[in-house]
Amino acid sequence: MTAATAEDRLAVGLIGAGRMGAFHAESLARRIPGARLAAIADPAPGAAGRLADRLGGPKPLTDIGALLAAPEVEAVVIATPARTHTDLVVAAAEAGKAVYCEKPMARTLAEADRAIDAARRAGVPLQIGFNRRYDRGFRAGHDLIASGGIGTPQLMRSLTRDPKLADPARVPPWTIFRETLIHDFDALRWLNPKAAPVEVFAMADALVRPDFKEEGLLDTAVVTIRFDNGAMATAEANFQAVYGYDVRAEVFGSAGMITLGEIRRTHMTAYGPEGAAAACVTYDQDLFHDAYVAELADFTDCVRTGRTPATTGTDARAALTMALAAIRSVTAGRAVRIDEVA
Amino acid sequence: MTAATAEDRLAVGLIGAGRMGAFHAESLARRIPGARLAAIADPAPGAAGRLADRLGGPKPLTDIGALLAAPEVEAVVIATPARTHTDLVVAAAEAGKAVYCEKPMARTLAEADRAIDAARRAGVPLQIGFNRRYDRGFRAGHDLIASGGIGTPQLMRSLTRDPKLADPARVPPWTIFRETLIHDFDALRWLNPKAAPVEVFAMADALVRPDFKEEGLLDTAVVTIRFDNGAMATAEANFQAVYGYDVRAEVFGSAGMITLGEIRRTHMTAYGPEGAAAACVTYDQDLFHDAYVAELADFTDCVRTGRTPATTGTDARAALTMALAAIRSVTAGRAVRIDEVA
Amino acid sequence: MTAATAEDRLAVGLIGAGRMGAFHAESLARRIPGARLAAIADPAPGAAGRLADRLGGPKPLTDIGALLAAPEVEAVVIATPARTHTDLVVAAAEAGKAVYCEKPMARTLAEADRAIDAARRAGVPLQIGFNRRYDRGFRAGHDLIASGGIGTPQLMRSLTRDPKLADPARVPPWTIFRETLIHDFDALRWLNPKAAPVEVFAMADALVRPDFKEEGLLDTAVVTIRFDNGAMATAEANFQAVYGYDVRAEVFGSAGMITLGEIRRTHMTAYGPEGAAAACVTYDQDLFHDAYVAELADFTDCVRTGRTPATTGTDARAALTMALAAIRSVTAGRAVRIDEVA
Amino acid sequence: MTAATAEDRLAVGLIGAGRMGAFHAESLARRIPGARLAAIADPAPGAAGRLADRLGGPKPLTDIGALLAAPEVEAVVIATPARTHTDLVVAAAEAGKAVYCEKPMARTLAEADRAIDAARRAGVPLQIGFNRRYDRGFRAGHDLIASGGIGTPQLMRSLTRDPKLADPARVPPWTIFRETLIHDFDALRWLNPKAAPVEVFAMADALVRPDFKEEGLLDTAVVTIRFDNGAMATAEANFQAVYGYDVRAEVFGSAGMITLGEIRRTHMTAYGPEGAAAACVTYDQDLFHDAYVAELADFTDCVRTGRTPATTGTDARAALTMALAAIRSVTAGRAVRIDEVA
Repeated sequence: MTAATAEDRLAVGLIGAGRMGAFHAESLARRIPGARLAAIADPAPGAAGRLADRLGGPKPLTDIGALLAAPEVEAVVIATPARTHTDLVVAAAEAGKAVYCEKPMARTLAEADRAIDAARRAGVPLQIGFNRRYDRGFRAGHDLIASGGIGTPQLMRSLTRDPKLADPARVPPWTIFRETLIHDFDALRWLNPKAAPVEVFAMADALVRPDFKEEGLLDTAVVTIRFDNGAMATAEANFQAVYGYDVRAEVFGSAGMITLGEIRRTHMTAYGPEGAAAACVTYDQDLFHDAYVAELADFTDCVRTGRTPATTGTDARAALTMALAAIRSVTAGRAVRIDEVA
Repeated sequence: MTAATAEDRLAVGLIGAGRMGAFHAESLARRIPGARLAAIADPAPGAAGRLADRLGGPKPLTDIGALLAAPEVEAVVIATPARTHTDLVVAAAEAGKAVYCEKPMARTLAEADRAIDAARRAGVPLQIGFNRRYDRGFRAGHDLIASGGIGTPQLMRSLTRDPKLADPARVPPWTIFRETLIHDFDALRWLNPKAAPVEVFAMADALVRPDFKEEGLLDTAVVTIRFDNGAMATAEANFQAVYGYDVRAEVFGSAGMITLGEIRRTHMTAYGPEGAAAACVTYDQDLFHDAYVAELADFTDCVRTGRTPATTGTDARAALTMALAAIRSVTAGRAVRIDEVA
Repeated sequence: MTAATAEDRLAVGLIGAGRMGAFHAESLARRIPGARLAAIADPAPGAAGRLADRLGGPKPLTDIGALLAAPEVEAVVIATPARTHTDLVVAAAEAGKAVYCEKPMARTLAEADRAIDAARRAGVPLQIGFNRRYDRGFRAGHDLIASGGIGTPQLMRSLTRDPKLADPARVPPWTIFRETLIHDFDALRWLNPKAAPVEVFAMADALVRPDFKEEGLLDTAVVTIRFDNGAMATAEANFQAVYGYDVRAEVFGSAGMITLGEIRRTHMTAYGPEGAAAACVTYDQDLFHDAYVAELADFTDCVRTGRTPATTGTDARAALTMALAAIRSVTAGRAVRIDEVA
Repeated sequence: MTAATAEDRLAVGLIGAGRMGAFHAESLARRIPGARLAAIADPAPGAAGRLADRLGGPKPLTDIGALLAAPEVEAVVIATPARTHTDLVVAAAEAGKAVYCEKPMARTLAEADRAIDAARRAGVPLQIGFNRRYDRGFRAGHDLIASGGIGTPQLMRSLTRDPKLADPARVPPWTIFRETLIHDFDALRWLNPKAAPVEVFAMADALVRPDFKEEGLLDTAVVTIRFDNGAMATAEANFQAVYGYDVRAEVFGSAGMITLGEIRRTHMTAYGPEGAAAACVTYDQDLFHDAYVAELADFTDCVRTGRTPATTGTDARAALTMALAAIRSVTAGRAVRIDEVA
């Protein structure tokens, strides 16, 4: 690694100063040697300013267009609400910026194609925030599978359980598939690297907050996916795990099995009259702290070196396809082939 | 407990001197204070004799009818091949014997009803070998759930992975549902004690031995089950886990989660240049040794006291219904409601 | 294995109908095919009778001499208070009985020699109850070490923590060394099979019940032991672990390490708002159930076949030597060489 | 947190550009918002320059005096060989710099006093690198103990096993006590916060490389420590653990127990025909990555706010006293009271 002066660090503009944006802002400002946080844009009055103040340096903006128009900004990180992602990816690409976008990149295949095409036409890198691929344990699992270490995958499982459903009224329809399970869909594709999904069957319901079911809330779901190498996978999600933030996976193959995931917050176990006890992880930025940093560091490196990102728009489209098939499966009450929605 | 002399111990006749029969024979002869092994019947020449010799006492027979006709035999344990179970349950009940039958009790609902009716008419206890209910850890999990300790179940999982598919040519069709996953179906019902299954979706294939798929082999399956309290369950099975015999379950509820299952053979962990290593369980009679004894001990006690067994013919019928729905789901390629097959 | 009729089962007489005696009685009566419980002797009025009643068969006696004189009794199991062990071993051996004796076999080296000599002169087997050697995980650890799997032991640890100090007034002096740590001393010798202890340094105190320190109570102790292959071992004990019954060991060698011990009662883990929780083992007859049975089964087999028991009087003497060195170390406040006490 | 511009970030000079120095350099340059790496000094030609180049900014020096004389340097981090620590602490303090020094701060009590006095006279903060106090799990353990969560400590254990003894010829005498176990001595004091050590007994040998024993190598040691609240602690160390870098602790108290330490490198477990396997941590900068950053971040904050560091020169002196008592114990072959060496 050679010296990175302020001049040769990648100048990144952050769009969206919310919870995840704030984390990425700190990473860009401090944790990633090759990057610097040049500007922050958030339409909410004061949001960008407060974050910029804290980080001492980046230019705060309320006008996203101004950020995209800034010539010194070489790349953008999009951490806004999901519904805005596609348009921002397109606008950023058209402005010639390298693009990192939080999942989901798109809500429809048309949107996905628009985003992918925009990046392709502009010749800019496009990376999507499937952070599990940057988690050290998940990465070790992937590498073992990719090297043939467990033979051919036959049974798979991936799950996401969020710790708390804060405001059910603000959960857009199908969020559990498009924003939550999209992680599991990507993880399953990545952990079965030589295969493609062919069929999906999904169940979903409002079990945490049945009182919001009529408003369209689905807070619990199980999806089974068939892959073209025969593997059968299960993805499950729930929006309220009282014990914490729970992300795990398991891949069983013809020559072995791996389990992935860490629920414990630290290595301390306490023993008392009630038995043995350990604290659980309750926050994604705790569990995936290093992965969140690593994905932006890798993005920075991809932009600099021209290397293709590990999680592209095409990956986002493939995971979206699985989500759409799952949604149609719930609506239709039957298994749905991927090629019905693709 | 008062003294159990030979006279007041329950005189049990064993039908079937195979692998599982031999285990039960030892339990009855030695491990269960309230029982004694009075006779062993197996049509295979010499089978009952060899086992009886080893246990020093029970009368060996090749004629099952002779065992059922023996007046001193108060109860029978049926450990023959699955296809013979129903007829033997009926015959034993009609002979007035209390009946313990290995799973599956029946292959069709008509068979199930025949067995249940026979026991009812004869007024004899009928217990089925769902041994997980007698495993200490599974039992602790059930009890916690039943007491409300994790709230209402929302997501469930149960799995069975056998260590070795020895002879794919000798696996009857649908075995994975009727003989393997039947355990998981029962476990899921038992771990969601206030609910009933309503719908099933199943996938199955010959992934271990695709060369036997044309003969009807299914060695890998995933089944999702919807319960009437909203819970979504997954049951999965595979006939060849190279690492061992793997039986686990997980129940996630509105107020907590439990995980069940032990893959490690002992408490020893060995650390070397390759990392940390632990041996796995490879044999069901190892993992479930105590549960296999406990279920027969409980049967013995039920017969003596008139208490209803914990796993009745009705439980077997309910699990069978789930298996039949799963089979139809595979055949029809769609979700199947339990009331379609019940 | 051939048939064991009542005649050719080993006729064992139990001496001592207390907590441990009751367990062994059940094992002899029911769990060990090759043995039968012929008689029970306990001087406490009614004790032998109640136990014999429960097991339906053995002859209850209050006179230990009568049991030793009974010609049909081939072997005895001694499960009386520690102070009586040596005399009973000698008397039993002189009566020509094979002898299984709970630890400790002796409280002094003179006693140990008396016991060993008596057995040698009588030509009877003498086995001591070092049950850890019969625990499956400990056994696996020993076997790995003995096969060279971790190279030469360099650092060792063994610990015993009892769950509850019920009555400090009834704990004889030096119990923690002679009755508790004696297990750890034996375990350390066994887990370092090619070496002998050479020096001991011990600390001990009444930390659980300091109010009984003046009466001589020692309820907490740490002993370090140097072996002649360089290995340095720690043995520690405490009489009141609020979380349960805790027995573990660790051996670190030139080519690897093993850890031994299981604190969890079952394989269930429960997750709730407080984190992850598991129940602990609280009772020795729970943790070592199978080991307690296995040691008597092996004794039975040794008597029948003439094979030398795995834990002999010589082993008991060697462990006692370590205990005596530890006691002298506490008294003298210095390290004590084994050859000072041997 | 308010904005930290280059001007108000703490200007830190690093002394020593070796393995640990390089890590701290990266932390100061990139990972700690409140600090900046102003200069690097290392007498080895090119060492400071190469590191400075990589980090793009700090001034490289071969003259440590020049660094100490630089007025813009507000604080120094000392990461040179142990024998130079005291003189550098004194020189830095006298130059008015806040001082962070890697353990050990001193090799004798006279040295320790010199260092402490220099810092006191100069009125500068002095922090020593006992990184375990900044590890999240160790911290959780400490906090539970400090809050009374396990009652009064009675039995304690702390261990350090390094993965590889690269060059036994270059290990200064008594390194295992002064540089390795010093961590455990500090950890034990910190985990028994209301008590002080009173007596030490130590064993040590060259078991990894007996061929270097004559040169004074000691690569394996066990130390038992008595505290004035009765607690008995064991500290053990070894220079070559083939399976990795192993740092653990255990504290058993009157009301509970905690275990601390993580040997696994990631959360992946792989299951195959040989059983279950997990990779181990093999590198201190992997296991303690976050703790190493946290201690410097805390140092930065202490300098800025005037808060006293968590690990002061007084702590280093106390741990040194334990090391000196252990050394004398080895030399004298007896237990040594702390007040003999203090």
